[in-house]
Amino acid sequence: MCELLGMECNVPTDIVFSFSGPALRGGLRGPHSDGWGLALYEGKAVRTFLEPEAAARSPLADFVRNHPVKTLLAVAHVRLKTRGKATLENTHPFVRELWGRSWTFAHNGTVRGAGRLPLGRFRPVGNTDSERAFCAILARLEARFSEYPRSREGKRALWQAVTDAGAEVGARGSFNFLLADGQHLFARCATKLHHIVRRAPFGAATLADDELRVDFAEVTTPTDRVAVIATAPLTRDEVWTAGAPGDLWVFRRGALRATLRA
Amino acid sequence: MCELLGMECNVPTDIVFSFSGPALRGGLRGPHSDGWGLALYEGKAVRTFLEPEAAARSPLADFVRNHPVKTLLAVAHVRLKTRGKATLENTHPFVRELWGRSWTFAHNGTVRGAGRLPLGRFRPVGNTDSERAFCAILARLEARFSEYPRSREGKRALWQAVTDAGAEVGARGSFNFLLADGQHLFARCATKLHHIVRRAPFGAATLADDELRVDFAEVTTPTDRVAVIATAPLTRDEVWTAGAPGDLWVFRRGALRATLRA
Repeated sequence: MCELLGMECNVPTDIVFSFSGPALRGGLRGPHSDGWGLALYEGKAVRTFLEPEAAARSPLADFVRNHPVKTLLAVAHVRLKTRGKATLENTHPFVRELWGRSWTFAHNGTVRGAGRLPLGRFRPVGNTDSERAFCAILARLEARFSEYPRSREGKRALWQAVTDAGAEVGARGSFNFLLADGQHLFARCATKLHHIVRRAPFGAATLADDELRVDFAEVTTPTDRVAVIATAPLTRDEVWTAGAPGDLWVFRRGALRATLRA
Repeated sequence: MCELLGMECNVPTDIVFSFSGPALRGGLRGPHSDGWGLALYEGKAVRTFLEPEAAARSPLADFVRNHPVKTLLAVAHVRLKTRGKATLENTHPFVRELWGRSWTFAHNGTVRGAGRLPLGRFRPVGNTDSERAFCAILARLEARFSEYPRSREGKRALWQAVTDAGAEVGARGSFNFLLADGQHLFARCATKLHHIVRRAPFGAATLADDELRVDFAEVTTPTDRVAVIATAPLTRDEVWTAGAPGDLWVFRRGALRATLRA
């Protein structure tokens, strides 16, 4: 399995503490050694760090850890090669523009029949089933809405459209994914995904596979909310919520807004 | 003026020597202090380093200088704010997917009437005239070709289509740009652009605004060819070719393949 990691907050937060776990598993302590990627949003735009090499041996991953960028929304991926070569073009998260926003996508699992999915005007650059599935989701959204929904009802319709697209595209295979649009983080559980929302009163937490420990009370204010989504729980002394197969979580401003099913 | 810098080669080459000049001008020795960006291709895919802050004071720019990535094709930009805020979404080079390739674009100058340009299915994420102009060029290419041209005649038609799109989109204003598709580097001169093709016999060169000197004979083989395109000549002891207003240069495999006019 690859590792997915997402973060969505109501105040700019650095992802380094959470990233340390998957990065360490990226070739050092686990089987994940075919690349990693990190997407950090600033509004509708996104900055990506992509490397088709093990994160644990990566100077760029070191740089990210040593120069944390605070963000409201982040998507990360550590890749175990399943299909397609370990090249830059096959490194998650993938990015596409839709409705004047940068959308990013990271996937864990396999999508069977990806070659037959209608892709609209989107074309994969690499040759992974994951990127094709991303294109297929965006094509469905673009066919359904002419612009980014602004009203409350429109947002709800978008959330459900993402849920339905995820169910249809991932009908065959295992389709755990993170999808972000600069305002929402959508997280789909097919086989394995967990989340936690950290809020006041903040406590301390210790990384599951490292000695690293952080007391969030020292680095937060009482109104902060930070949602973290990961393939496996990242800490060993907090309560994480496991997703059920088919669940689509919608996070916005550091809170779980909805759990939807197709 | 912002600084444009492009490199297109027939063997993987690192851009650090050339990047050192514009990066140094990025806030330290010149007026350029509103951000910088670097796009490095691997095949059809591209890796970007973007920062809406001065390159001269940027830890990420330091990282790029200290960990050079070799590439066949690179586009870089150091930004002097003209229109739009200095934010990530307004930082060049911009990236879009077309025909399953990552296209990148960096601009120097101003495009008047950018708000009225037809954009096809492309939408700007930020609010610069540059990104709108990029969208307008891609929309024109997409309207003209159904897929990436593969034949020799098709490539020639693409080159001319880029030239025509550049002339039309940049008809009002100053439209110096670099446009790359993973295989070509297109460089348009409106007011100021220079290029050089380094090939055997290689000599030494000294950066125009630094003491840094490189003997290319020591780091090359006799069949290497490296084309470098820049707003102003980067070295003080080589002969650079100045563009004429309206010239569109096409570089491929380290050679100038054509100089076209609309």
